[in-house]
Amino acid sequence: MATHKLLLLPGDGIGPEVMGEVQRLIDWINAQGIAKFETEQGLVGGSAYDAHKVSISEGDMDKAKAADAIIFGAVGGPKWDSVPYEVRPEAGLLRLRKDLGLFANLRPAVCYPALADASSLKREAVEGLDIMIVRELTGGVYFGEPKTITDLGNGQKRAIDTQVYDTYEIERIGRVAFDLARKRRNKVTSMEKRNVMKSGVLWNEVMTQVHAREYKDVTLEHQLADSGGMMLVKAPKQFDVIVTDNLFGDMLSDIAAMLTGSLGMLPSASLGEIDAKTRKRRSLFEPVHGSAPDIAGKGLANPIAMISSFGMALRYSFDMGTLADKVDAAIAAVLASGLRTADIKSEGTTAASTTQMGEAILKEL
Amino acid sequence: MATHKLLLLPGDGIGPEVMGEVQRLIDWINAQGIAKFETEQGLVGGSAYDAHKVSISEGDMDKAKAADAIIFGAVGGPKWDSVPYEVRPEAGLLRLRKDLGLFANLRPAVCYPALADASSLKREAVEGLDIMIVRELTGGVYFGEPKTITDLGNGQKRAIDTQVYDTYEIERIGRVAFDLARKRRNKVTSMEKRNVMKSGVLWNEVMTQVHAREYKDVTLEHQLADSGGMMLVKAPKQFDVIVTDNLFGDMLSDIAAMLTGSLGMLPSASLGEIDAKTRKRRSLFEPVHGSAPDIAGKGLANPIAMISSFGMALRYSFDMGTLADKVDAAIAAVLASGLRTADIKSEGTTAASTTQMGEAILKEL
Ligand SMILES: CC(C)[C@H](C(=O)O)[C@@H](O)C(=O)O
Ligand SMILES: CC(C)[C@H](C(=O)O)[C@@H](O)C(=O)O
Repeated sequence: MATHKLLLLPGDGIGPEVMGEVQRLIDWINAQGIAKFETEQGLVGGSAYDAHKVSISEGDMDKAKAADAIIFGAVGGPKWDSVPYEVRPEAGLLRLRKDLGLFANLRPAVCYPALADASSLKREAVEGLDIMIVRELTGGVYFGEPKTITDLGNGQKRAIDTQVYDTYEIERIGRVAFDLARKRRNKVTSMEKRNVMKSGVLWNEVMTQVHAREYKDVTLEHQLADSGGMMLVKAPKQFDVIVTDNLFGDMLSDIAAMLTGSLGMLPSASLGEIDAKTRKRRSLFEPVHGSAPDIAGKGLANPIAMISSFGMALRYSFDMGTLADKVDAAIAAVLASGLRTADIKSEGTTAASTTQMGEAILKEL
Repeated sequence: MATHKLLLLPGDGIGPEVMGEVQRLIDWINAQGIAKFETEQGLVGGSAYDAHKVSISEGDMDKAKAADAIIFGAVGGPKWDSVPYEVRPEAGLLRLRKDLGLFANLRPAVCYPALADASSLKREAVEGLDIMIVRELTGGVYFGEPKTITDLGNGQKRAIDTQVYDTYEIERIGRVAFDLARKRRNKVTSMEKRNVMKSGVLWNEVMTQVHAREYKDVTLEHQLADSGGMMLVKAPKQFDVIVTDNLFGDMLSDIAAMLTGSLGMLPSASLGEIDAKTRKRRSLFEPVHGSAPDIAGKGLANPIAMISSFGMALRYSFDMGTLADKVDAAIAAVLASGLRTADIKSEGTTAASTTQMGEAILKEL
């Protein structure tokens, strides 16, 4: 049996707690002899700053490059609000994404039936919701240069960020979206602001070309990102796969996640290009929720998004779709049994701590 | 009595129909001797392209500069999808905003009680909602240079958009937001992405300074634009005034509008700086909804957003707050009576055409 190398980066806030439940799941898989995972730990975000005054150390970057997959918790918190910009907690995550070439961010927004009532939307609007947001993750305004603040004198400063996209970046994220749609409901909605942004014009043009050349069997629709956001709030079930740029993807995927009422439940995968020789790709898996410093260390955090992110790792990095399905089923079963962490509790359900939730899922498996 | 000069720019799609109802209201005000409005008409968007191959003519730009206020309908439609980029319908609107210096875009998101059920959100989440979104309108990625698509050869192109903000631009929009908050619930939430964008860092810094120097009596909160968008969907009533940049404002104000279930009802105002001598400011008023080409010319459009935008003109440009209140009350009364255009109809209400709705509001007055 091949050994799979995992780098666990718990990060800050509730990161370590929810990562603990993944560690437990990994130990179980190893003990059962289902697969062989070798784990290493690293520091990222505020915890890396506290230890080394950086957002991620060169040593941990090397481990990340050597790993078969990275399992990432969450970063940030008020404690590090005034550290220098270059070493703020988020910088560690952004460096991982960029230096590992993790250009494809997959964010499923799924409404767990047991939780439909937790949504601020009407049940009929979100029940059965199952959207996949494909967000470009290594380009756009996140990384474009110049990115500067200049002192103009007279008390005036000028801040500049640059949105840059090249054809190949749009092509490859388009292919990821179209490939996913083929395994789903065969529809891709591309969102940009072509009426205002040149990058939107190019995005629209390239998506249309990739579709016409390679994916005629998939339905492609274009929407302006602002009206797309509206439609997401009004009638989210009309969407299957949404493909969009880094910044719009940041906004739209958060909104989609919130619609489901299941924010503490949603995983994400960030994938690199498939190596032509090894057929492998770099990958990082993280929950959509943040580090929630206010509840950190209290055993209150919901570990489901983190466990489900590890499920995505099984599916996308280790070709263990069957085991991933089992993890998903175990989560659904535990929810159906009425167990709830504080963020999703409602009348008539049973309260569970982070650990109790993790244990219950393991027991189901 | 002073004569007020209005430029009416109906634009495309349903623009001319809904503008017709404003014209009727103006005629009535003139006839009653309440005020003296002089109106001129101009072309913008697709209709300007059809007539002159531009998105707005120099003649109409001159009229816009000479007017005391501009009343704007809507632009765009599939008919002009392939006109050259520089003369696309939206370019006319963008030029008006930029050349007239209309930097402050006020977008109230109000949930009309009679329409709370039209929202995809639960009634309790939106009933009584009353947010004011203050969007910076002449800066950011909308106008920053370079804004280009370059051919790199080898089938590759590179698209660039530039987000630029100077201190003074953030200061002046901040002041608009704080001044409005003082007349409302005294709270401003500033949204940016300081964890990724340098413009977000400067935005945050300048808002904090303006607040500390001039508006200590107002509560200021900062939120990242992505989690701000989430909070808007989860619990919108926590907000009073939201101040944000051009692009985030575009997305967030559309989402806020959709939350209310009253998209066809929402007005907006775009204001320039107050002239130190004349105490006047340039201004443009337009509905938040678009040109809805699919229902254009059928008498189906809801004129309320357009009429309500004219109400904002009365309030912000002509100091006729009392008359503006009356217009708002007339709209509320007509809705309470059960009259509905197609976009907001529900069981037990009475169907009305564009004209019937306009007439009913006039009768209330
Ligand atoms: C933490 C932050 C840098 C990050 C982003 O903006 O991409 C987060 O919001 C996300 O969506 O993963
Ligand atoms: C028509 C378009 C250029 C415009 C914008 O993006 O600002 C519109 O969406 C708006 O919000 O007024």
